[in-house]
Amino acid sequence: MFPRCNVGRDASGATPASNLFPYASRQIPRYDFAGRSDESTIFGRDQMNLTEYIDSKRDEHLNELYEFLRIPSVSAQSEHKPDIERAAQWVAGKLRAAGLDNVEILPTKMHPLVYGESLRAPGKPTILFYGHYDVQPAEPLNLWTSPAFEPTVRDGNLFARGSADDKGQVHIHMRALDAIMKTAGKLPINLKVMIEGEEEVGSVSLWDFVKANKARLKADALVVSDTGMLAKGVPSITYALRGLNYYEIEITGPAQDLHSGIFGGAVPNPITILCELFAKLHDRNNRVAIPGFYDDVEKLSAAERKALNSLPWKAGDFKKNVGAPGLSGEKGFSIIEQLGARPTLEMNGIWGGYTGEGAKTVIPSKAYAKFSTRLVPHQDADKITRLVEKHIRKQLPKTVKMKFTVHSQGNPWAAPYTHPFFEVAHNALQKGFGKRAVFIREGGSIPFVTQMHDTFKVPCILLGFGLPDENAHAPDEHISLENYFGGIRAVAQFYEGLGRL
Amino acid sequence: MFPRCNVGRDASGATPASNLFPYASRQIPRYDFAGRSDESTIFGRDQMNLTEYIDSKRDEHLNELYEFLRIPSVSAQSEHKPDIERAAQWVAGKLRAAGLDNVEILPTKMHPLVYGESLRAPGKPTILFYGHYDVQPAEPLNLWTSPAFEPTVRDGNLFARGSADDKGQVHIHMRALDAIMKTAGKLPINLKVMIEGEEEVGSVSLWDFVKANKARLKADALVVSDTGMLAKGVPSITYALRGLNYYEIEITGPAQDLHSGIFGGAVPNPITILCELFAKLHDRNNRVAIPGFYDDVEKLSAAERKALNSLPWKAGDFKKNVGAPGLSGEKGFSIIEQLGARPTLEMNGIWGGYTGEGAKTVIPSKAYAKFSTRLVPHQDADKITRLVEKHIRKQLPKTVKMKFTVHSQGNPWAAPYTHPFFEVAHNALQKGFGKRAVFIREGGSIPFVTQMHDTFKVPCILLGFGLPDENAHAPDEHISLENYFGGIRAVAQFYEGLGRL
Repeated sequence: MFPRCNVGRDASGATPASNLFPYASRQIPRYDFAGRSDESTIFGRDQMNLTEYIDSKRDEHLNELYEFLRIPSVSAQSEHKPDIERAAQWVAGKLRAAGLDNVEILPTKMHPLVYGESLRAPGKPTILFYGHYDVQPAEPLNLWTSPAFEPTVRDGNLFARGSADDKGQVHIHMRALDAIMKTAGKLPINLKVMIEGEEEVGSVSLWDFVKANKARLKADALVVSDTGMLAKGVPSITYALRGLNYYEIEITGPAQDLHSGIFGGAVPNPITILCELFAKLHDRNNRVAIPGFYDDVEKLSAAERKALNSLPWKAGDFKKNVGAPGLSGEKGFSIIEQLGARPTLEMNGIWGGYTGEGAKTVIPSKAYAKFSTRLVPHQDADKITRLVEKHIRKQLPKTVKMKFTVHSQGNPWAAPYTHPFFEVAHNALQKGFGKRAVFIREGGSIPFVTQMHDTFKVPCILLGFGLPDENAHAPDEHISLENYFGGIRAVAQFYEGLGRL
Repeated sequence: MFPRCNVGRDASGATPASNLFPYASRQIPRYDFAGRSDESTIFGRDQMNLTEYIDSKRDEHLNELYEFLRIPSVSAQSEHKPDIERAAQWVAGKLRAAGLDNVEILPTKMHPLVYGESLRAPGKPTILFYGHYDVQPAEPLNLWTSPAFEPTVRDGNLFARGSADDKGQVHIHMRALDAIMKTAGKLPINLKVMIEGEEEVGSVSLWDFVKANKARLKADALVVSDTGMLAKGVPSITYALRGLNYYEIEITGPAQDLHSGIFGGAVPNPITILCELFAKLHDRNNRVAIPGFYDDVEKLSAAERKALNSLPWKAGDFKKNVGAPGLSGEKGFSIIEQLGARPTLEMNGIWGGYTGEGAKTVIPSKAYAKFSTRLVPHQDADKITRLVEKHIRKQLPKTVKMKFTVHSQGNPWAAPYTHPFFEVAHNALQKGFGKRAVFIREGGSIPFVTQMHDTFKVPCILLGFGLPDENAHAPDEHISLENYFGGIRAVAQFYEGLGRL
C-alpha cells in the first residue's frame, strides 16, 4: 500500500535526477517529470467543470463509499463468503450505474471477479483498470477505535477496513468515471475494468482468468490504484513492487498433546523446535541465512544508492511511526534500501500449545508458523520457494515431521516509465492535488502487476492514494479524505488527458 | 499424573533394592516392602465384607462419578466459573452424604475450596486427604472421540476430562468412605478432607488457606491421590515429585501491527525475536542453557542410577506411546532419569500475528509464549525464577520490550518413606488390587505436597491410580475401570488398616 522511495524525482525538484534513475540511461523520457508546466496549465480552466462537479458531490461520494466499506468482504475467512458475494454485486451495480457495458460477475474456484467495459471511443487509448474489493481480516477487533466495518470520520480521516486497501481507491475510479459521464456524457477513452475478490489471499484465480481472456483484456496500459504516496502532500506514481511468496509450516512431534510434567525432558517439543528452526533463518547481520537467497538480487548501482538516500524522507519520522524501541534491518543497507530494494523473510504468524487464559502444562503435538519472503528484481519466486523449503528441511531435526505449504507466489516488478501515458498521469496528479508529483518504489506486492506486465508487455501505471501511517492490514486502517477527494479529481483528469492524446 | 520410575522395589521383586534406595542408607524401613506377607494376609477373610460391599455397588459408583465428570469445572477459563461453583457444591454434598461433619465451601480470591472432617475416633490416627475438583481445559475439542464432558466407557476405560486427573481419584476416596460407613457404621480413623478448585492453575489460593488454618488442618499424615501407577497391574506409591514454575512472556516490537511488505526488512519482528530467544534456552545437548540452572541439582548416586535403570520399564513402549519420530532428552541421561530425576524447561504455548485461515501479510506488534521449568531436589523455585528472568532479559535485543509474568511456582519434593503408615498403604494396595505394589517417582508436580511436607513435617502418602497412557491434560483423557474399582477397595483397606494401628 505504501511508497518506500522515490528515485525518479524528489519532491523538492532540486535534484535533476534523470541521470540517476536506473532506466533513464536506456531511454530518455520525452516529457518533463519535474513538472515545469506553469500553474496555468496545471490548474487550467479547461477542466474546471469536471473538478467543480467532483467537489460539489463530496457527500454523495462519501455516502456511497460507506455502503461499500460496510460489507465485510474478508477473502481469507470462509465465514465471510456471503459478504464477498454481496460486495461483488455492489461493485457490478456501480459499474453499470457509471455507464459501463457488459458488466458481469464471473465465478472462480474461490471468490468472483467483476468485469465491465466501455469501448465507445474508437481511435482512443484502451486502459485496463484493476482493483480488488476484498479486504484483510479485521482481527484483532479489540484494537479498533471504531468498529472495522462501520466507517467513521475523525480528524479528516475515514476509518474502516478497506478504506485505503483497496476499496477506497477502487471507489476513487468509480466516482471519477461517474463524474466524467455526468459532465461530458461519455468516456473519452476505451476502458476495461476488472475488480477481483482474492487479492488479499494471493489472487489465486485471477491469473487463470487472465490467461483464458487474453484477447478480451487486451489494452494499451494497465492502471492500478492499490499503492501509496511517499508522504502527505506528495502525489506519487509507483514504478516498482516487491514480489511475495507466502508459506506455512506445521511441525508434528508427539502423536498427541502430552503432560509436560510426565513427559517433559525426554520428548521433542514442536514449539521449541519451531523456534530453533526460525532462529536459524537470519544471521547476526539480519541477513536471510538461506543459501542462495541473495544470488539473483540486482545489485544497486552507486548512482541509485545515492539517489535513494537523497530522498526527502526522514528516518526519524519512520522510526516514530513504527514505535518500536529500535529498528533491526539488514546490515550494510540504509532503511530506505532495506524497505524498497532488499528482499526479506518475515514471520507473519505463529501458534501452538495452550494460548488461552492462565496456565496449562502441555507439550503440544503440533506447532505452526506462517511466514513470507519479499522478493526484488531479479529473484525468481519458484526458485526462492525451492531454496526456502530445501533449507528448512535440512535444518529440521529427525525427531519431528513437517508439512510445508505454499499459499501463494509472486515475482517482483520494476517498470521503465518512459511511455507518454506516464506523463499524462503525472500531470493529472498535479492537477488533482495542486502539488508536484513524484515517482517512487513500493515494498509491498501486487502479483498481478508483474504477471500482466510480463504477459501483455504494456505499461503498468500505479496511481496510489494511501499514506504510510494509514494502517493498511492493521487495526484502525484509514484514508485521508484530502487524498480520497484529490484522487477522484486526479483520476478524472487522467482519463480526460488520455482522451486528448 | 503418571509414574516415571521405581527406585524402592521393582515390580518383579527380584532385586533386594533397599541398599540402592537413596533414603535407605539413612534409615532402615521397619517393615518389608517386598510384600512377603503371604496370600492369606493379603486376601484375608477379615476384610471380605468391605470388599464384597464395594464390588456389589459398581453401577452406583459409576453413575455418581458420571455426575461429577459432567460438570466442566475448568479452572483456567473464566467462562467456567459457574461450573466451578457447581462442582464445589457437588463435592460438599457427597462429603456430607458420606457422614463427614462441618462440611463447608470456603471462598478464596479465585475458586472455592471444599472442607469437611470426621473427628470421632479418639486415639486413632488423623489423616488429611487432599484432592482437586478442577480440571484442565478440554481444548482442542475436535480431537476427542467422545465429548470431553460426557463420560463414555470404551474397552474397559472411562473417557472424560478429569476422569484420571483428578475427579476420578477423588471419587475413589468418596466411595471408599461411603463403603466403610455403610458396612461398619463409622470411620475407624479421624479424617480431614480438603478438595480445592485451583490445582490446574497452580493452587494459587491454597497456601494462604493452609497457613491461616494450621491448627485446624493438623494431621498425622497427608494422603493424596493425584498420581499414577508405574504400569498396568502395578499398584504404586509415589515418593517424589518435580517442582513447577510457570511463566509467560509478552514481546512488543512495533507499536501496532504493520504491513510486512511496507515495513518488512527494517523493523523488529516480535515473533522472530521470540523464536531467537527460545532457541537460546537449550544447548546442543538438550541441556537448559541458563547459567546456574543446574547448580543445586542433587547428583544421582551411582547406586540410584543403577536402580533407576533396572526398573521394569520399557523405553520402546514409552517411545511408541509418545508417537514422535524420535526422542530428544538431555544428553548423558537415560530416558527414565530425564523424566524423573532431571529438571526441564518446556514451552507450553506460543502465539502471535495471524493464526487464522489463509494468508495475512502482517508484522505483529506483539508475540507471546507460555513456558515452564520442572525442578528436582534441591533446586529452589524462587532462585530458578530469578535465573530464568535474568538470563532472558540479558538475551533480549534492545529493539523490543518484554513483560515477564510468573503464573505460579512450586518446589520439588522427595520423601523418605520409612513411616509405618507407608506399610499400611503398601498392604492396602496389594489387598485392593491383588497384585504386588511398588514405590515410584513422578515427573509431574503437586506444589501443595511440598508445601504441606515443609510446613507440617508429616509423611505425605501419594496413592495414585492413573496410567501413563491415559492422556491426562490431553484429548481422550480416561481412567481404567479396573484401577478405579481397585482404588476404591485399596483406599477402603487403607483407612481400615490405619484404624488398626
